[in-house]
Amino acid sequence: MRVLGIDPGLTRCGVGVVEGVPGRPCKLVAYYVVYTEADEDIALRLRHLDESLAKLVAEHRPESVAVERVFSQHNVRTVMGTAQASAVAILAGARARLPVQTYTPSEVKAAITGSGTAGKAQVTSMVTRLLGLDKPPRPADAADALALAICHIWRGGTRARIAAAAQAAARRTGAPR
Amino acid sequence: MRVLGIDPGLTRCGVGVVEGVPGRPCKLVAYYVVYTEADEDIALRLRHLDESLAKLVAEHRPESVAVERVFSQHNVRTVMGTAQASAVAILAGARARLPVQTYTPSEVKAAITGSGTAGKAQVTSMVTRLLGLDKPPRPADAADALALAICHIWRGGTRARIAAAAQAAARRTGAPR
Repeated sequence: MRVLGIDPGLTRCGVGVVEGVPGRPCKLVAYYVVYTEADEDIALRLRHLDESLAKLVAEHRPESVAVERVFSQHNVRTVMGTAQASAVAILAGARARLPVQTYTPSEVKAAITGSGTAGKAQVTSMVTRLLGLDKPPRPADAADALALAICHIWRGGTRARIAAAAQAAARRTGAPR
Repeated sequence: MRVLGIDPGLTRCGVGVVEGVPGRPCKLVAYYVVYTEADEDIALRLRHLDESLAKLVAEHRPESVAVERVFSQHNVRTVMGTAQASAVAILAGARARLPVQTYTPSEVKAAITGSGTAGKAQVTSMVTRLLGLDKPPRPADAADALALAICHIWRGGTRARIAAAAQAAARRTGAPR
C-alpha cells in the first residue's frame, strides 16, 4: 500500500510518501517540506498549505493518509498553529475521499523504534535504515512524516481498510451525516 | 458590504451573514449553525464542516469573511478542536479568494457593546437590537457569528479593503508566496 504521511506544522509541514506492506522494509517514494512565512497572513498561510497538500495527494495518489495527532504539551502559541495545520492536513486526505488516520508521536516512535520514548535521532536513524537510504532524510520534519507513513503501513493497514469500508458503505446507503 | 461571520467550533459552528456600512444598523441576511457529532471520525467532521462552509460562502457571496480568533485560555481539549475548526473556517474564505479577518472575542464585544468584557447576554441583546430583530437569534453560536460580522462591518471595512488590494496586487504581479 502507498501511504502519504503528514507531520503538520504551519511554518514547516513535513510530507512523506512510502510504499510497503506490514512488517517488511518500505520503499521511499518522495518527501517534501511545505514552508509558510511566519509573518504572512494566516489565511494565505493556510491556503498555501491546503493547495500544496492537495497537489501532493493528487500527484502521488496514496491509498491512505497518516497525520500526527496534535497534543497540547508543547508551547501554547505553537500548538494553535499546529492544530490549524493538522486540520488542513486531515482535510487534504478527507477531501480526496481517502481514509485518514491520526497517530500520537509515541505511537509512531514505538512502531518505528520499539520505544515510545525514543529520541528524534533514533527515529531518523530507523527511518533511514527501514527505507534503505544512504543518508538521513533532511530536514527532520520530512523524517517524521516518513516515520508516520511507515507506522501507518505497519500498524494501520487493517484499521484503514475498516475505515474505508465503512466510508464506502455510508456512501452507498447515503447515510445522513 | 456583505460579511459572513464564523464562530468556529467543531461540535457547533455558528455562521452569520450581515449587510451594512460602518456605524449604522445592519441588515440580517441569514444565520446557521453547522453541527458535527463528537463521536464521529475527525476527518469526517472536518470534511462536513468544510463542505457546509463552502456551500454557505458560495450561496451568500460575501465580500469578506470574519472569523473569531482562537485563544488558549479555554479547556485545552476543546481548544484543539476549536483551532482545527478555525482553520477550516479561514480556509473557506481563503479558498474563495475572499479577504479573511480574525477578531478576538474582546474586540467583538467592544465593537458591539462598547465593553470588551461584556457578557454573552449583553452581546446577544445588542445583536438583536442592531439587526432590528423581534427576538434574539438562537442558539448563541449564531448570535456570536452575527456579532463577528457586525464587528467586521463597523471596524474592519478599511482593513479588509487594504488586504483585498494587497491580495489583488500580489496576484497581478505573480509575487511568489
